[in-house]
Amino acid sequence: MSLIVHKYGGTSMGSIERIGNVARRVAKWRRAGHDVVVVPSAMAGETNRLLGLAAELKAPQTQDAARELDMIAATGEQVSVGLLSLALQAQGVPAVGLAGWQVAVRTDGAHGKARIEEIDTTRVNEHLRAGRVVIITGFQGIGPNGHQTTLGRGGSDTSAVAMAAALGAQECLIFTDVDGVYTTDPRVVTEARRLPRITFEEMLEMASLGSKVLQIRSVEFAGKYRVRTRVLSSLTDPDIPIEEEAESGTLITFEEDQAMEDAVVSGIAFSRDEAKITLTRVPDTPGVAFRILGPVAEANIDVDMIIQNQSIDGTTDFSFTVHRNEYDKTLALLQGKVRADIGAGDIIGDQKICKVSVVGIGMRSHVGIASLMFKTLSEEGINIQMISTSEIKISVVIDDKYLELAVRALHKAFGLEEASA
Amino acid sequence: MSLIVHKYGGTSMGSIERIGNVARRVAKWRRAGHDVVVVPSAMAGETNRLLGLAAELKAPQTQDAARELDMIAATGEQVSVGLLSLALQAQGVPAVGLAGWQVAVRTDGAHGKARIEEIDTTRVNEHLRAGRVVIITGFQGIGPNGHQTTLGRGGSDTSAVAMAAALGAQECLIFTDVDGVYTTDPRVVTEARRLPRITFEEMLEMASLGSKVLQIRSVEFAGKYRVRTRVLSSLTDPDIPIEEEAESGTLITFEEDQAMEDAVVSGIAFSRDEAKITLTRVPDTPGVAFRILGPVAEANIDVDMIIQNQSIDGTTDFSFTVHRNEYDKTLALLQGKVRADIGAGDIIGDQKICKVSVVGIGMRSHVGIASLMFKTLSEEGINIQMISTSEIKISVVIDDKYLELAVRALHKAFGLEEASA
Repeated sequence: MSLIVHKYGGTSMGSIERIGNVARRVAKWRRAGHDVVVVPSAMAGETNRLLGLAAELKAPQTQDAARELDMIAATGEQVSVGLLSLALQAQGVPAVGLAGWQVAVRTDGAHGKARIEEIDTTRVNEHLRAGRVVIITGFQGIGPNGHQTTLGRGGSDTSAVAMAAALGAQECLIFTDVDGVYTTDPRVVTEARRLPRITFEEMLEMASLGSKVLQIRSVEFAGKYRVRTRVLSSLTDPDIPIEEEAESGTLITFEEDQAMEDAVVSGIAFSRDEAKITLTRVPDTPGVAFRILGPVAEANIDVDMIIQNQSIDGTTDFSFTVHRNEYDKTLALLQGKVRADIGAGDIIGDQKICKVSVVGIGMRSHVGIASLMFKTLSEEGINIQMISTSEIKISVVIDDKYLELAVRALHKAFGLEEASA
Repeated sequence: MSLIVHKYGGTSMGSIERIGNVARRVAKWRRAGHDVVVVPSAMAGETNRLLGLAAELKAPQTQDAARELDMIAATGEQVSVGLLSLALQAQGVPAVGLAGWQVAVRTDGAHGKARIEEIDTTRVNEHLRAGRVVIITGFQGIGPNGHQTTLGRGGSDTSAVAMAAALGAQECLIFTDVDGVYTTDPRVVTEARRLPRITFEEMLEMASLGSKVLQIRSVEFAGKYRVRTRVLSSLTDPDIPIEEEAESGTLITFEEDQAMEDAVVSGIAFSRDEAKITLTRVPDTPGVAFRILGPVAEANIDVDMIIQNQSIDGTTDFSFTVHRNEYDKTLALLQGKVRADIGAGDIIGDQKICKVSVVGIGMRSHVGIASLMFKTLSEEGINIQMISTSEIKISVVIDDKYLELAVRALHKAFGLEEASA
C-alpha cells in the first residue's frame, strides 16, 4: 500500500483514554496495509504548564534562555510519543518512538521559532521496513550546535507536513477537533459549509486571515513541497470505515480543477485581532515609508495591511494595521521620535476594527468580485475604512461591531451556503 | 581553582523556589572560582507521575515497551536541567543544559536499568572552558541503538559520580535531604552521630544494608574510579560560607587513615525488608544449592544471605533471605517443583525478621567484634536466627520486634555515640 503521515493535536492527545483512541485509529490504518508515521502534539495544557514553570524563574530573555526553554518545552511531545507508542503496543501493533533529534530533523538555530532545514529519513525508513509504526515528536528538531529547537506554537502541523514531504508520503492527515475547513466560521454563520477541497493558496489566505485550523507555516510547506494535506476530525469513532475517513475533512491541494475555478469565492475569512494607525499629512518624499515602518520592524512588531494613497498638496495619509496586542507599543513608538523625524501631522488610531476578506482561487479569472463585495457591504450600511487586495483575496477593514453582519451578508451574497463542489 | 560536580535530588529540585536555592548554592561555588558541573534529578514526584500515566496504557512488558518508558521517564530530568539553567542565568551566571544523549553518556541497551559504559567529555569541557556552569540530566544516557536509556531508581547519584570520574573532578558533592551518613538511623537511636568520613567499602555495606543515602551503584562507581564523594545537606542556607560547606556532611574516601582504623566499627545498619526461608532435611549432595537457588534466580528473585551448615546424617538445613515483597512468590516456587525435585523435608518461612549489621573497616585488624556483638544481643535476650559475615561487616537475622532494641544496644556497646574522629 502507501505511506501516510498522521498528525494529532493536543486535545486529541489530552488523556490516556484519548491516546487509546488515537492508537485505535492509527492501528486501523496500519492493519489496512499502510505504512504509518504519526506526529503527536504534547498533551493539551502541557506546553503551557512547562513554560509557566520556566517563566517563574524570570531569566533574562537571551538566546541562552531561549535554548533552555526549548529543552524544557520539547519534553511535552516526547512524553506523548512514548505514550502513543505504548498504546499501540498494547493493541498489538509494533511501534517505535523517536524524538526530533533522533530522526534527525535538522533546523536552524533560532530557538523558539526554528525552521526545518533538512530531515534525514534513513532511520524512519528502517523502522517502517521492519513493519513498525513510527511515532515522531512534533514541534521540534535539532539545531546546528546540537541543541534541541522548537518551531513555535502549532509547529507540529509543520513537522507533520515536512515529514510527509521528506518521506514522499501519499498524504498527510491532520487530525484535529474540527472536521475540516469551512466557508467561514460556523459560530458566526450557521449555514457555513465544509469545503471538500481547497487550494493551498486559498488555505494560505484563510490561515493567515484568522481561520486557525492550521499553522500557516505548515501550509507554506505543503505548497512548497506539494504535499497532499487533509484536515479531518479526530472526534469521530476511531473505527469508522477507512474508505469513509479517507474522503472526509478538507483536502488542501495544488491541483486546481474546474469545479474549484467555478466556485470563484471559497470562503469568508475574518480577524478581530487588528488595530489600525494612520499618520496624517505625511510629506510625500522618497523613503518616508521606510522611516515610518523601519522603527516598527526593529521593535519586532508585525505589520499586516499597509495603505498609502495618492498625495494631495505634497502630503499623504499613511495607514497600516498591527496586532491589537501591539497597538499601544506602536502608537508610543510613532508619537515619539518617528513623528518628529518625518514632520507628520496627527496620529489617529483605532482598535475597534476588524478585517473581513473574501478568498478564492477563481477570483483570478473572474471580474466583479470586488464590486459585489463593496455593494453587499454598502447595502448593509457598513462603511469600508481600508481596502487591500491580492491575487486571490480582497480584504476590507470595517468597524468591528459590524463583523458578524458583514460575514453573514458576504457568505450569502457569494452563494457559499448552497451545497456544491 | 578546581572542578566540582554537584548532584541535587528530587526534593531539592521540588519547586521553583527550591530550584532558585539550588542555583544560589551553585552560583556561590562558581563565583569562588570553581568549574561546576551539576546533575539534578527530576522534580519530586515527576518520575512517578510520568510512569503512572504510562502504566495506565497496560502495554505488554517487552523490551519495546521498556524503551518507550525510558523515553517518557527521561523527560523529568530534562525539565529540571532546563529550569536550573534558567535559574542560574537569572542570577547572572552563564549556564548551559545538556541531556545525557548530548554529552554523550553512553550506556548499554538495558532499558530501565542501563549501565554507563563511556562518557565523552569533549562537549562538557568546551562549555566549562567558555566559563559556563554545565547542567547535565542525571539518571539517563544513550544506548547502542541511539535510544535514550535510564539507569534505574536513584540513578542520578551514579550519573554524578560517573561524570566526576570522567572529568577527573576534585570532588563529587551529593546534596540531599540528610546532612551525611550516620552511625545508624537517628530515628531509631537519638544519639546517632554523623560520620565525617567513611571508606567506600563501608559505605557499600551501609548502602546495601538499608541506609538509603546513596544508590549502591554510585558507591561502587566511586570505589572503582576512586572518586572523592561527599554526601551533604541541601537544606542549609544556600549562602553559608563555602569553606564550611566544603567540610560538612560525610566524605566517602578510599584513603584510610589511622583514625578510621581505630574506630573499628563505623556504624550499625539494618533492614526490615527481608524474609527468610529454610528448607529442612536437604540431602547433602553436590549441586543441591544450585538446584534450590537456580529456579529462584531464573524467576528474577534476588537472594541476600545464604546459609548452609555442616550436614548431620547426610542432610542439612538450607536457609536464605529474600526481599519481603518476593516472599510469597519464592515460597510457592519452592513448595512446588523444587522441593519434590531435591527430596527435601518441610519448608519453613518467616517474614517477621530483620537484619542488623555492624560495619567497619577497622574490623579487619581487630578481633572480638563478633563476640561483642553476640554478647550484647544475648544480654538483651535477643535470639540470633542467622549469621553472615564479610571482611568488614557482621550481619545477624533476628525477630523484627527486637530491631530498635538491638540497634540501640549495639550502637552503645561499640561506643558510637561518643564524639570522635
